Amino acid sequence: MMNTDPLIRQVMERVPAWLPQHPGKGDIVISSRIRLARNLHGFPFPLNASPTVRGEVANAFFDAMEATENGDWLRLAMEPLNDLSVALLFERKLISREFLTREPGRFLVLASDPRLSVMINEEDHFRMQYCRSDGNLMASWTELSEFESRLQKILNFSYLPERGYITSCPSNLGTGIRASVMMHLPALRILDRLKTLKTAFANMGMTARGLNGEGTDIIGNLYQISNQSTLGESEEDIIRRLLAVVADIEQEERNAREELLSGDNLIRLSDCCARAYGNLKYCYQIASSEALNLLSLLRLGCDCGFFPDIPVKELNRMLLLSLPAHLAYRAGRELSPEERAAGRAALFREFLSNPAPGEGNGTVRE
Amino acid sequence: MMNTDPLIRQVMERVPAWLPQHPGKGDIVISSRIRLARNLHGFPFPLNASPTVRGEVANAFFDAMEATENGDWLRLAMEPLNDLSVALLFERKLISREFLTREPGRFLVLASDPRLSVMINEEDHFRMQYCRSDGNLMASWTELSEFESRLQKILNFSYLPERGYITSCPSNLGTGIRASVMMHLPALRILDRLKTLKTAFANMGMTARGLNGEGTDIIGNLYQISNQSTLGESEEDIIRRLLAVVADIEQEERNAREELLSGDNLIRLSDCCARAYGNLKYCYQIASSEALNLLSLLRLGCDCGFFPDIPVKELNRMLLLSLPAHLAYRAGRELSPEERAAGRAALFREFLSNPAPGEGNGTVRE
Repeated sequence: MMNTDPLIRQVMERVPAWLPQHPGKGDIVISSRIRLARNLHGFPFPLNASPTVRGEVANAFFDAMEATENGDWLRLAMEPLNDLSVALLFERKLISREFLTREPGRFLVLASDPRLSVMINEEDHFRMQYCRSDGNLMASWTELSEFESRLQKILNFSYLPERGYITSCPSNLGTGIRASVMMHLPALRILDRLKTLKTAFANMGMTARGLNGEGTDIIGNLYQISNQSTLGESEEDIIRRLLAVVADIEQEERNAREELLSGDNLIRLSDCCARAYGNLKYCYQIASSEALNLLSLLRLGCDCGFFPDIPVKELNRMLLLSLPAHLAYRAGRELSPEERAAGRAALFREFLSNPAPGEGNGTVRE
Repeated sequence: MMNTDPLIRQVMERVPAWLPQHPGKGDIVISSRIRLARNLHGFPFPLNASPTVRGEVANAFFDAMEATENGDWLRLAMEPLNDLSVALLFERKLISREFLTREPGRFLVLASDPRLSVMINEEDHFRMQYCRSDGNLMASWTELSEFESRLQKILNFSYLPERGYITSCPSNLGTGIRASVMMHLPALRILDRLKTLKTAFANMGMTARGLNGEGTDIIGNLYQISNQSTLGESEEDIIRRLLAVVADIEQEERNAREELLSGDNLIRLSDCCARAYGNLKYCYQIASSEALNLLSLLRLGCDCGFFPDIPVKELNRMLLLSLPAHLAYRAGRELSPEERAAGRAALFREFLSNPAPGEGNGTVRE
């Protein structure tokens, strides 16, 4: 029934690059990502290209990888993958929503550095991304630009001197860079301060999206902050401006948490966090979006020191394992929505009955 | 700050007559009540009577009580009571919402039998009520009619041979009787079957009201079923018809519970009940209506055998203690809405941390 590709099983053995392995207490920046859009000179954009032409573009890329990269790298053809496999890749943020369609000539390349991956023949010929489980975008940029430079010795990327790199969509023209930072902002959400904040950073050329990118709802109080413009600035300047905005939002969230921890607000905060614990511990069916929202509040409680026995790292793991395709992968078969809701609930009940060697009893410790 | 009347303290030491002391597992009928409306011949109805006239009516009643009743009985003048005291009486269902206004000449009489009480100078001169923590309305009727007969030897009640007893509001004309049964109908509510049921019993001359009587919302899945007409039938016939409707509804609720306990519904039922447990155990602030709704689901869970260590009797006690005036009485001072929400939450957290000599761990046992 569920015939998972052997390469997918290899991917599933890796820990996603964006999942913090040693999360600090109170981390507001969860992860960050840079992607670069590049196209091969002399070939039509993927949407206008025949399967044969796409195949040529992909092969050119593989040849360049062979020539420049040391270490093992993986290539996954999208076309033969089943629904579950692509859903797993999507939940792990290795492919975009658009890539779920598995058109011929689409490939995912995973470098030996698990933080580095490339989608071939998405909207552009090459979408290279570098993810990490912190906000050090400059370090990511160094890695990604070095990777791109190595490839550029072999591949001839479309480039106009006065414009920069040519991309399929004009919004990526120029640097072709999109840098984004995933932030956990539960306190700003509880205090209902996000609307004004969003207007403020939209004015600075930044945008906020949901967990799964463009057009997705905000769930789990996770906001993906990214640059909107790609033109007229160097990559470093774009990153620096984004990091400045992120630092501002981080400070706002810290202030909001301080506010919630003081005076009459404390009881409201305790109530939110401890009920999230109670609902996750005693649910028998739970939808993905509710689960993410409750995990967010539980994480806030951990950040505030309410649940000393729940390790934040485990919460991150729960977030990943409770996603629909990951539940099915774990069950070893496809699941109906009802089975997923029940399986997710069982996962949380089990986890919170024994979250760690210690014992999390949900009593708020002030 | 809180100067409770000594008589109120005496009332508070009694267990309310409608609160089951030995509740059975799965009880759907929680309590029942009969009230009789009577007026003294030759005196205007209370709403049209001067304080002096009201006083005369009350004194006539006290004289009759002295002459006919053995044992201790209490009389409470409403006028001197403070807000908290009348709120306590209201929460104990000893007085009506109308009686909260404490106009001169209004009295509450409590007989030595704690199930028997009389409001003097409410809408009618005398509103006698008999409450019990089961559905045995015929037994209540025997007690109440004997009480009324004893009084009638001394008091001349307004009566028209062809109409029956005269009452202030025509809806009580005739027998002046209202019989009601408090039913706990969570399964019918979960399965959303109450609308059709309500239409059905309205057609049978019965009406469903909320916990606090006319015009109040349904909370805690508690429905007060009562007769609408008081005319053209004997008291026994009215009671028999009501009991027949109650038996039908009880069967519908039992069927609904069976349905929820079978097949795919079980997970939904478990989820509702166990989450109610989780929310009550881990809340830090909770409104009265939410508390009643969650207690109802917890009780349903107890009825279904999910929480073997939570005694239903204690749930009933929690229901009473978590009411606003009872919280203030327990705290020994007036409380702001925020303090009540926090105090109520503390009550539940404490209760569910140690509900009984055993330990209720919220794990649904199937």
